[in-house]
Amino acid sequence: MQDASGLTDRLVALLGRSNVLLPGDDQEPYTVDWRGRYRGEALAVVRPGSTPEVAKVVRLSAEAGVAIVPQGGNTGLCGAAVPSGGRPSVIVRLDRMRRIREVSPLANTITVEAGCVLADIQSAAQAADRLFPLSLGAEGSCRIGGNIGTNAGGTAVLRYGPTRELVLGIEAVLPDGRVFNGLRALRKDNTGYDLKQLFIGAEGTLGIVTAAVLKLFARPRTSALALAMLESVDQAIALMGLLRGEVGDRIASLEIMSRGQIEAIAATCPDTAIPFPLDAPWYLIVELTDTLAGIDLRAPLEAALGLALERELITDAIVAASEAQAKAIWRVRHSVSEGNKRSGFVVSHDSAVPLDRQAAFVTGVERRILAAVPHARVVMHGHIGDGNIHVVALVDPARVTDPAEAERVVRLINEAVDDETRAQNGAISAEHGIGQSNLGRLARVTDPLELDLMRAIKGVLDPAGLMNPGKVLAQR
Amino acid sequence: MQDASGLTDRLVALLGRSNVLLPGDDQEPYTVDWRGRYRGEALAVVRPGSTPEVAKVVRLSAEAGVAIVPQGGNTGLCGAAVPSGGRPSVIVRLDRMRRIREVSPLANTITVEAGCVLADIQSAAQAADRLFPLSLGAEGSCRIGGNIGTNAGGTAVLRYGPTRELVLGIEAVLPDGRVFNGLRALRKDNTGYDLKQLFIGAEGTLGIVTAAVLKLFARPRTSALALAMLESVDQAIALMGLLRGEVGDRIASLEIMSRGQIEAIAATCPDTAIPFPLDAPWYLIVELTDTLAGIDLRAPLEAALGLALERELITDAIVAASEAQAKAIWRVRHSVSEGNKRSGFVVSHDSAVPLDRQAAFVTGVERRILAAVPHARVVMHGHIGDGNIHVVALVDPARVTDPAEAERVVRLINEAVDDETRAQNGAISAEHGIGQSNLGRLARVTDPLELDLMRAIKGVLDPAGLMNPGKVLAQR
Repeated sequence: MQDASGLTDRLVALLGRSNVLLPGDDQEPYTVDWRGRYRGEALAVVRPGSTPEVAKVVRLSAEAGVAIVPQGGNTGLCGAAVPSGGRPSVIVRLDRMRRIREVSPLANTITVEAGCVLADIQSAAQAADRLFPLSLGAEGSCRIGGNIGTNAGGTAVLRYGPTRELVLGIEAVLPDGRVFNGLRALRKDNTGYDLKQLFIGAEGTLGIVTAAVLKLFARPRTSALALAMLESVDQAIALMGLLRGEVGDRIASLEIMSRGQIEAIAATCPDTAIPFPLDAPWYLIVELTDTLAGIDLRAPLEAALGLALERELITDAIVAASEAQAKAIWRVRHSVSEGNKRSGFVVSHDSAVPLDRQAAFVTGVERRILAAVPHARVVMHGHIGDGNIHVVALVDPARVTDPAEAERVVRLINEAVDDETRAQNGAISAEHGIGQSNLGRLARVTDPLELDLMRAIKGVLDPAGLMNPGKVLAQR
Repeated sequence: MQDASGLTDRLVALLGRSNVLLPGDDQEPYTVDWRGRYRGEALAVVRPGSTPEVAKVVRLSAEAGVAIVPQGGNTGLCGAAVPSGGRPSVIVRLDRMRRIREVSPLANTITVEAGCVLADIQSAAQAADRLFPLSLGAEGSCRIGGNIGTNAGGTAVLRYGPTRELVLGIEAVLPDGRVFNGLRALRKDNTGYDLKQLFIGAEGTLGIVTAAVLKLFARPRTSALALAMLESVDQAIALMGLLRGEVGDRIASLEIMSRGQIEAIAATCPDTAIPFPLDAPWYLIVELTDTLAGIDLRAPLEAALGLALERELITDAIVAASEAQAKAIWRVRHSVSEGNKRSGFVVSHDSAVPLDRQAAFVTGVERRILAAVPHARVVMHGHIGDGNIHVVALVDPARVTDPAEAERVVRLINEAVDDETRAQNGAISAEHGIGQSNLGRLARVTDPLELDLMRAIKGVLDPAGLMNPGKVLAQR
């Protein structure tokens, strides 16, 4: 990769040699995504230490006509954080900017730099007797700038909303190097267009988030957990309705797994005990929490499940008698990815549909996948309170040793899932985003008018098309 | 007002004469805002009955180069819903589009057309044993399209967020007459830029919202109310912190009033009894609610207030012993506007500041106002859990009989409030918006970069500048 413009020299002069990785250096942790699916090339990987430095890097790169790729923890699933298309790029890592600038338990806010690791933000909130609810598998290494850029979801969306709803203010460097200073800790602000929304979930294509003011919440102090066995997703939805009436807004988690999903774990993860009989088609983890200590949540949970049994909404249920039992149940849920990886060639999906369309969706999607790829095994798990059921097709690796055949199988499964998602008025990505992986799928199912609007927004903020090109929208 | 283009004939042909008010007809309820401060002119006031009809009206108007002004209930406070600047306009009323298309208690969603009156949506939710939490003074006549267009606030923001957080999906007619169909009932959607955000709070300048999918919630079934007497806003903030620890997320309202505010009511509203002694500088209404029936909220509220007394965060408190007593206390809060109107020439403000800057803000803003206009009386009330304190300057009408002097006084007070708001890193409008009223104030306090970005967004969606021109952004 050539640097005809002398850009790298200017970047080294700006940041110091130790904060610039050049092509001869070990760039691989940053140019390749963590699953090894996307391999980009970089003129330089830079580590600015402040917002003005980020701005200068962007300005220098823009002047040289070089693409800019913002990168947080590089834990994304869709290749949004590494360069694409073989064009010369500068990767901007935010990892030196990890200061927690302020925690205000009175205002219930925390102000953080984009490079803060999510788990560090959770800890800082807890130290102030508050909760920062965003929680997901990668929390030990993902960074809040990436969480904001991808509008991360995770396990607390049902109660607290996705990242978008947790952000009060944003500071971002625009594609021309100017700094948008929207770092305001305001619960209400009706002074014109809400510009910060542009940067949330845009996957770094409209600018680089450099800092944010986030919401904090009262900490949950009590919890109760049950596992319900069900005949169908319809029953799970009805149970959700009943629980809403009986326990109000104490519902913290509603995580569903198909029997096939648990069987895949049971067969491949010897360390994960399955502490319940495997004889129901569906399993639902119900967790209630309360922000008050000393509240009895078990009694209302047991009462609600008793009512559900009476109304034949569930076939059986276990209420965890101890913290250990609750953990053992969660462990099954947390073994899902590992179990699937060990069960075959994985084609996994991240659809969202309206809550009341989930039963029709799971039936329809399985039918479509099996019609297209009869030898696939379809297992499912997901956040049923969010309408977000992960559909996973497991394929015998022996059948996809030929790359062309593997590609064909993936395409057929993707089309089956996307067609059913569209038929249910859903979205093909609930949490993971578009990145490089899903450009073609997005273009296939999205109203051209929406793509037009996205391109119009992109065009006006980044007319040269240098900010994380080839992500979200295909390059033309 | 001339119609050289023949547009009105085409509008009559499209909608029928009965759905088009021409200049000879009684247009006044629609061309003048409800407070009578803004008087516009209209080529026609039209009442389309469907989204395709709205789209056709927009297309015909755009072809004729005529401005379009969307109008809901015409209850706004800043003149956003009536034509400005004397240019030929078509006012598009949504009031025939008032169908509630679907209520799903299972999905916790309601799908409504833009012309639905807010109170009708609240009732439909209640009929399904759910809560639609948006609640504000004009709820009997404002329409949801206007609430979305202005990102309405109201009394439930502390617990449920502003309108923006209550909207899952939007359908809108773009300035070129195309229809954005984002009417999706999805809790999670990461398929590209979140385009619906553009239309929320844009005051109709980027398109006309024609329908929406809104969130529903579990209904509160228990409540408890107290009135606390305080020495300062600092104490109110500390009490809020204490309550968060003691009663978790059960806090539904934290409404503060200065003694001067209540004295203004006491002096002018004989029908409003003041059921407590008027000897403290500040009064705070604390309301707790729970979505479960049969929960005792009074005991924890009394305990928390006891603790607050012990820690000298409050000087006294009354816990309402009955529904009637609670209502009598709320009645004082609800008499604020009437009391102020009867107390003088009113210059009222709608600032938001970070929650922990409210004490500094109230001190600073009073000092600045009195320095600029020594004869003003400053009273305050507001939503202290949202950082939104309404600062109201009451001026003796005898001092502002001269319009030029009235204008000078208003300008001085506005500048005093806006300067202090900016000093506290706040926003000059928390709820009411910009409309026509606050164009100059917005331009005065806003970072030019933000205005640039707003203009860029406006320019790309509405290049001809025909969609509600002269609102939010001044015409150039």
